[in-house]
Amino acid sequence: MAQREQLNGHRAFALWLTGLSASGKTTLARMLEAELLERKKRCYVLDGDRVRKGLNADLGFSPPDRAENIRRAGEVAKLMVEAGLIVIGAFITPYISLRSMVRSLFPADSFYEIFLDCPLEICEKRDPNGLYRKAREGSIESFTGISAPYEPPLKPDLRLQTSKKSPKECVDMLLDFVLARCSQS
Amino acid sequence: MAQREQLNGHRAFALWLTGLSASGKTTLARMLEAELLERKKRCYVLDGDRVRKGLNADLGFSPPDRAENIRRAGEVAKLMVEAGLIVIGAFITPYISLRSMVRSLFPADSFYEIFLDCPLEICEKRDPNGLYRKAREGSIESFTGISAPYEPPLKPDLRLQTSKKSPKECVDMLLDFVLARCSQS
Repeated sequence: MAQREQLNGHRAFALWLTGLSASGKTTLARMLEAELLERKKRCYVLDGDRVRKGLNADLGFSPPDRAENIRRAGEVAKLMVEAGLIVIGAFITPYISLRSMVRSLFPADSFYEIFLDCPLEICEKRDPNGLYRKAREGSIESFTGISAPYEPPLKPDLRLQTSKKSPKECVDMLLDFVLARCSQS
Repeated sequence: MAQREQLNGHRAFALWLTGLSASGKTTLARMLEAELLERKKRCYVLDGDRVRKGLNADLGFSPPDRAENIRRAGEVAKLMVEAGLIVIGAFITPYISLRSMVRSLFPADSFYEIFLDCPLEICEKRDPNGLYRKAREGSIESFTGISAPYEPPLKPDLRLQTSKKSPKECVDMLLDFVLARCSQS
């Protein structure tokens, strides 16, 4: 990894964006990715869309399948960090135990938990894909926030109040956070 | 991917090294990786060791588990290529159907099959980890070349006769092959 970090001119690590559906994870991940590429930082967004289409296409949405979805995403993020990349994971990851499991895959200074803190009522109002509506109607089972719990991080490495700040403000905070961790110490 | 290729100054694609156990896959993959990093090419070796320790730690060695091992490795390679890397996969991948499945994940000019062509008797003589001996004794089941078939590629993108050429000569051929495919056309 060290040789790759030297070649790329920055450290490699994973950011893990956790939060409710519609809290802004994919939006902020993509905006951050664009800002980082602009600054010649090698990065990659891993999100549900990307892993469920291929690697995890064999998995459904039962609780064990969801846990396995996250486990594999974490393992891929780990390999990508070894390959020298800044990986931006964007997954609800609702349980503290799941997030600890992912964190445990990485060395201490190579994994950061970013909490996208947005009240359920606002996420539900946004409902870009109609998922909250379907969950309320009962046509989606165990939907995080409605019929399954979300355990907020107790000590996230960064907390973004995505309902109080604009996406631009949130990305600026994320960018500051990342750039401060890019240099080899 | 295009933006990353521009940033890195080279195309991203996967090489898939296929061949018997002890045909030289991991050795050549590591040597090639070192040469490529030296030339500022972003690359990463994916091999059995790396994926079986983490991502595929839940898989055993039954035929369906082996196929799943390769499927997941192929999917990870695909994500890494999207992330701008030259991925060097090093897996026995004994069946034509398995290799076609992996190839089908990639656009046409982003996947190259490299056949490490080495006679079984030579691989068996090398036997660096004593696996052939164990397979002959019957303590490993379905061992490729002994108790399970290896289907040689009919039209590999590159064929390396690893018993007739030195590792250095083989890596030089690999390096020429890769460097010729690095520039955006």
